[in-house]
Amino acid sequence: MLDALKEDVWRANRRLVDSGLVILTWGNASGFDPGSGLVAIKPSGVAYDAMTPADMVVVDLDGKVVEGTLNPSSDTPTHLEFYRNFPGVCGAVHTHSVEATAWAQACREIPCYGTTHADQFHGPVPVTRYLTKEEVAEAYERNTGRVIVELFRGRDPLAQPGVLVAGHAPFTWGATPEKAVENAIALEAMAHMARLTEELSTGRSASPLPEYISEKHYQRKHGPAAYYGQKERTDDSTRCWN
Amino acid sequence: MLDALKEDVWRANRRLVDSGLVILTWGNASGFDPGSGLVAIKPSGVAYDAMTPADMVVVDLDGKVVEGTLNPSSDTPTHLEFYRNFPGVCGAVHTHSVEATAWAQACREIPCYGTTHADQFHGPVPVTRYLTKEEVAEAYERNTGRVIVELFRGRDPLAQPGVLVAGHAPFTWGATPEKAVENAIALEAMAHMARLTEELSTGRSASPLPEYISEKHYQRKHGPAAYYGQKERTDDSTRCWN
Amino acid sequence: MLDALKEDVWRANRRLVDSGLVILTWGNASGFDPGSGLVAIKPSGVAYDAMTPADMVVVDLDGKVVEGTLNPSSDTPTHLEFYRNFPGVCGAVHTHSVEATAWAQACREIPCYGTTHADQFHGPVPVTRYLTKEEVAEAYERNTGRVIVELFRGRDPLAQPGVLVAGHAPFTWGATPEKAVENAIALEAMAHMARLTEELSTGRSASPLPEYISEKHYQRKHGPAAYYGQKERTDDSTRCWN
Amino acid sequence: MLDALKEDVWRANRRLVDSGLVILTWGNASGFDPGSGLVAIKPSGVAYDAMTPADMVVVDLDGKVVEGTLNPSSDTPTHLEFYRNFPGVCGAVHTHSVEATAWAQACREIPCYGTTHADQFHGPVPVTRYLTKEEVAEAYERNTGRVIVELFRGRDPLAQPGVLVAGHAPFTWGATPEKAVENAIALEAMAHMARLTEELSTGRSASPLPEYISEKHYQRKHGPAAYYGQKERTDDSTRCWN
Repeated sequence: MLDALKEDVWRANRRLVDSGLVILTWGNASGFDPGSGLVAIKPSGVAYDAMTPADMVVVDLDGKVVEGTLNPSSDTPTHLEFYRNFPGVCGAVHTHSVEATAWAQACREIPCYGTTHADQFHGPVPVTRYLTKEEVAEAYERNTGRVIVELFRGRDPLAQPGVLVAGHAPFTWGATPEKAVENAIALEAMAHMARLTEELSTGRSASPLPEYISEKHYQRKHGPAAYYGQKERTDDSTRCWN
Repeated sequence: MLDALKEDVWRANRRLVDSGLVILTWGNASGFDPGSGLVAIKPSGVAYDAMTPADMVVVDLDGKVVEGTLNPSSDTPTHLEFYRNFPGVCGAVHTHSVEATAWAQACREIPCYGTTHADQFHGPVPVTRYLTKEEVAEAYERNTGRVIVELFRGRDPLAQPGVLVAGHAPFTWGATPEKAVENAIALEAMAHMARLTEELSTGRSASPLPEYISEKHYQRKHGPAAYYGQKERTDDSTRCWN
Repeated sequence: MLDALKEDVWRANRRLVDSGLVILTWGNASGFDPGSGLVAIKPSGVAYDAMTPADMVVVDLDGKVVEGTLNPSSDTPTHLEFYRNFPGVCGAVHTHSVEATAWAQACREIPCYGTTHADQFHGPVPVTRYLTKEEVAEAYERNTGRVIVELFRGRDPLAQPGVLVAGHAPFTWGATPEKAVENAIALEAMAHMARLTEELSTGRSASPLPEYISEKHYQRKHGPAAYYGQKERTDDSTRCWN
Repeated sequence: MLDALKEDVWRANRRLVDSGLVILTWGNASGFDPGSGLVAIKPSGVAYDAMTPADMVVVDLDGKVVEGTLNPSSDTPTHLEFYRNFPGVCGAVHTHSVEATAWAQACREIPCYGTTHADQFHGPVPVTRYLTKEEVAEAYERNTGRVIVELFRGRDPLAQPGVLVAGHAPFTWGATPEKAVENAIALEAMAHMARLTEELSTGRSASPLPEYISEKHYQRKHGPAAYYGQKERTDDSTRCWN
């Protein structure tokens, strides 16, 4: 069932490791098939080396396991919130990558200091509030997703394909599992460069990139007038619609 | 004798190197067999590439070599203190990994700034006092272990599976040599993220993760109500009892 | 057509990746053949692994595609400004390498703090001004090149083989595509060392290398009295003249 | 001629690269044969991948090429000062490794903040003065060696097997080329950890390791009462005497 999606999700999980974003088993990628309404996701706490595409667990949008003998990632309820609420999102990723996690732990959004950021992300990378005591006690992972969705009210999730959860770590998403992984790689680089930019600006304050430059860079790569890349590779043509 | 343990200890030592935690020969892993009361440990100052499982040295809890032609790690007496005093600990690791060592050199405990830390470690990672002149002169490595054991009076070593020795470097431990290595990898990541969190919080002070979130994360992975990972992989089922 | 140049350009692009300077597809290298007046450059947004020498796109100095089925790098107009204005430059490189990009984002030139820098680069690595709103709106990539060329009026581009574009990232160049890549590698190292030098000098101010030492180091490797390397490898013998 | 030494020197140069200490061609290792009074050293500016043991250049203590068709490293006169003045030193290394170079560029000695340092190096890693204008103009590389030798008057070069040249980079040495490389690796780690220790101590000042602990650690690994490592591997037994 959903063999192609399970293969994509497995490959996405492996690429997270190969990219150095995942330490031990601290990360997971999932993919959504809008036709069937099903999600394939990494099993919980399993070593990446031992994992095969067949180990990916298939769940429905309520989190019920439809296929697979292993437990799905404990973060599954967070992923499901994205697929339920973000139209066009068919891939999601969670890591504890060092640089992005440090911003999350400092409870700071990442300002847009340059075109590397502007190429990938429309505006600063937002940070959530802490979950309340009640939200933690009740349905922690699902409420993590809800707090993210709450923060994205009025935003376009495909133009801002990631978030920092305060005191926790980043989540990213995209039109496919592969895109979600690329956004996780990009976010880590943006977080790293932003930290160094502030370090080099000590004593003066780092100033964000002028709006007209960041806008130009974002539009170069995204939207109807994009001219970066080959035609068949623009984001819009690979969007999934749910 | 103890071939399986020697193989585990050898593999643990290799994984330390593959994980980038060990520079030159600065690190060692050991394992304890509670049945026989014997310990297998890396030989001292031997290059990791040349080492085979058969090179692991077997000692008893008094440090007497029971098997092996090479000298055991000079840190052996420190490891033995763990096995003598920490019930359930059957693996121990020492490294000079860069980020954790920097905290040890700064004589600072590592605060819990996020869930990455809370997932692995119950509370801050403690730092010992400096050894006294007499403790250094008398039985330096054994006293290093004693100072650690002294610091852990009233603590659960499996909930806080590591320590920073002031001016020296980290030690970690766990239910198996493999677990001890994973705790060393986790500690290095926690140390790295904590440093960057403080850097990003300059001018304001970094604030620790709220207690109710860190508690939730720790309990998600450990203890009777843990739901992270596959059932057969929970910590408690792999505890060794001595 | 220009098979040797396309091979050189392909190899230069691969070496950028192998050197860790390129994240995802954020980088490109090109080469110029002064005889034909043609340029070979990386296609836009194509994964490095999949690329073959035959995928390199050939354009003339006006940016017209002369050979190749893929779109050339969207930064092509910037590269062309170098070949049109910098005599002796037959290779150019653009990356978003982390350390150099951080200086670009902080809008700071890189001071010469040591001989590593002086060996490679005559004087500080300059930083451009931001492009104006009009320059961004009109012909963004070409104007990026023009702003660089404007900054280099009165400078020797082969003695200062690179630049930081404010809020963006580095460009480097050289007598060949290979040299341009080596200058990109060197620039990243210089940027890294300069940041750490300032960090270690907090509370006192870092002081630039004395002029007579930096001059000595530059002349050791470059110009008529150079004595570094083997004779057939001096820069001047491999200069291309356009 | 001196085939074993050339092989050792070649291997030492390769290990420098494999250890990440050398960028492009910025580094060199040499070895000294006290019997013949000859030195084997890396050729200048040659790519490490292409180098074979036969490419190592043999020079006498006056720098005259005795064997080899390539130019010796331009830093050869610096190496020769070590072999002429430091009894027991038969290997020398120069790199521009990032962390050690940053300390050299900041013109700061590296304080001993922990046992990692104390295990390898007796006391702080010293930094030279800048060379004078006249010393640079006259015989730059030889005078670099002389300034180092001047700084080591009254010191034991085998107990302090390395130095930072102000505004330049580190040199290390040892009883063999292999030991010199290991000291270069250790120095980079010590430099890295010392920088992070100071970063983590901001607002309070980092305090050096108590003398009685650093002394214990140094004596554990070196000198007559050393008990680290296997017997046949202690430093003293592999000293070369010139």
